[in-house]
Amino acid sequence: MSRSGEFELIRRFLAPLATAAGAGGLEDDAALLDAPEGKRRLAVTTDTMVEGVHFPPDGPPSLIARRLLRSNLSDLAAMAARPEGYLLNLALSERIDDPWLEAFAAGLAADQEEFGISLLGGDTVGTPGALTLTVTAFGSASTPVRRSGATPGDLVFVTGPVGDGYFGLKAVRGEMEAPRLAERYWLPSPRFGAAEGATAAADISDGLVADLGHICHASGVAAVIDLEAVPLSAEVAALGAQARLDSLTGGDDYELVFTAPRSTAIAVGRIVSGEGVTVLDGAGQPVALARQGYRHD
Amino acid sequence: MSRSGEFELIRRFLAPLATAAGAGGLEDDAALLDAPEGKRRLAVTTDTMVEGVHFPPDGPPSLIARRLLRSNLSDLAAMAARPEGYLLNLALSERIDDPWLEAFAAGLAADQEEFGISLLGGDTVGTPGALTLTVTAFGSASTPVRRSGATPGDLVFVTGPVGDGYFGLKAVRGEMEAPRLAERYWLPSPRFGAAEGATAAADISDGLVADLGHICHASGVAAVIDLEAVPLSAEVAALGAQARLDSLTGGDDYELVFTAPRSTAIAVGRIVSGEGVTVLDGAGQPVALARQGYRHD
Repeated sequence: MSRSGEFELIRRFLAPLATAAGAGGLEDDAALLDAPEGKRRLAVTTDTMVEGVHFPPDGPPSLIARRLLRSNLSDLAAMAARPEGYLLNLALSERIDDPWLEAFAAGLAADQEEFGISLLGGDTVGTPGALTLTVTAFGSASTPVRRSGATPGDLVFVTGPVGDGYFGLKAVRGEMEAPRLAERYWLPSPRFGAAEGATAAADISDGLVADLGHICHASGVAAVIDLEAVPLSAEVAALGAQARLDSLTGGDDYELVFTAPRSTAIAVGRIVSGEGVTVLDGAGQPVALARQGYRHD
Repeated sequence: MSRSGEFELIRRFLAPLATAAGAGGLEDDAALLDAPEGKRRLAVTTDTMVEGVHFPPDGPPSLIARRLLRSNLSDLAAMAARPEGYLLNLALSERIDDPWLEAFAAGLAADQEEFGISLLGGDTVGTPGALTLTVTAFGSASTPVRRSGATPGDLVFVTGPVGDGYFGLKAVRGEMEAPRLAERYWLPSPRFGAAEGATAAADISDGLVADLGHICHASGVAAVIDLEAVPLSAEVAALGAQARLDSLTGGDDYELVFTAPRSTAIAVGRIVSGEGVTVLDGAGQPVALARQGYRHD
């Protein structure tokens, strides 16, 4: 292994990412974050990913970086927030060397460019255990959308095909041949703008049924999903009926599910009074689900 | 091992700590953080601690929690910021059970009360490796103090005895008998208010010489420390001359070092033009240091 010490590592790989003035070149005890003019409210979210638990060991470092960052940005999108910047905590296992870090930083740089954000600060340590990565992302949220605002009569929408992440992970693991799905696993697209004006929203990283269930729980309502209205990509649709069900409960998707009173867009379900999420088939009959959703834990 | 699942764990141990409205009961994709009225500027800091690297394995969970939180609060104090709230990321190793989590949460609750802050959000995952804990703390900073403002002619101050943390760790490890120092290791006191009006400040978690060195580097100046002016606790002073030197370069202290043009307080040194930090003995002669400071890395 050849790895720079902490200060050298920060200087070489991380300081170039800290383009915002508030990052202070990563030289201060804390970063400074200004709430945008007229928007004093910040949305803050954080995700920790452990190698072998949340992403495959020996995955490409640039894609590990971008997926980690995008999963946090997706949480901001679910709150109808706009991305401002992020912190990065690295607990580096012994196998991580400078070429790995260089590729990891290049992935972050690409997505900083794409989403117009800057690294603001963080912490870098060594660990005798598994590589552990944490991103904390900040967004401005003048009119944040929470999970608790759904009411009976609202319709339920998703922002794109469901199941690409679930089957994408199978493709990454070599269990099926689907390069586009593998890319969707590694590079989810945060749906900025989609949740604006919604009564409630969440990203579906735990699966559509589970995350709509979180909305229902927080809102004190129930939901009914029309199985045949749920959009699937062509690759997933071609896998058959069981794949359609698995797509509703599989994890690793980063589309949003949101509720709104009415829309010209096509709804996948509706909010009703009661508890829980029910899926109806084309004949209007409830579908039995083997599980509600995915948990890494 | 007996440990609750992620959702149950959050409900039992973490949700009771999320007292701020912006935490949304830990049910949303992101927390909401309002910049205080008239203070749009937030200070943000984050520290990751790995069991066996940054704290002794099998340390008391309540003290591990409080030290992690206080080390972050100390960074806010160094920026002259006031604490507002924090995020908590837990990567739990297999040995962590519910009693451990209960004691850990009790430690956080005690310090939330002491410092008037709330848990705002976080992430909880399992890890096959070492217990890895991250706190990200937020503070309001109307007039933040950075590391880059020291100028020749400024005096150098510390907020309290130096070396208690370094020798406290030895006490925790059973290498010496000093219960008060062990407590100082586990429960550092963030020096809120002390840095207000300073030209530059840092906490001395890397050691006085190293962190004053960071100020010098960021400010483009040098510093001279008067060895005999550096305050030591009675226990550390009793350890003799080498202990006095070790206290200047030992880590794990959470006093602040700051620079200011003049003061009625007693200075430990002064800022001069040039580079680096020089320590002078009672006869005004430079002292050779075996190392500049401590790094966990």
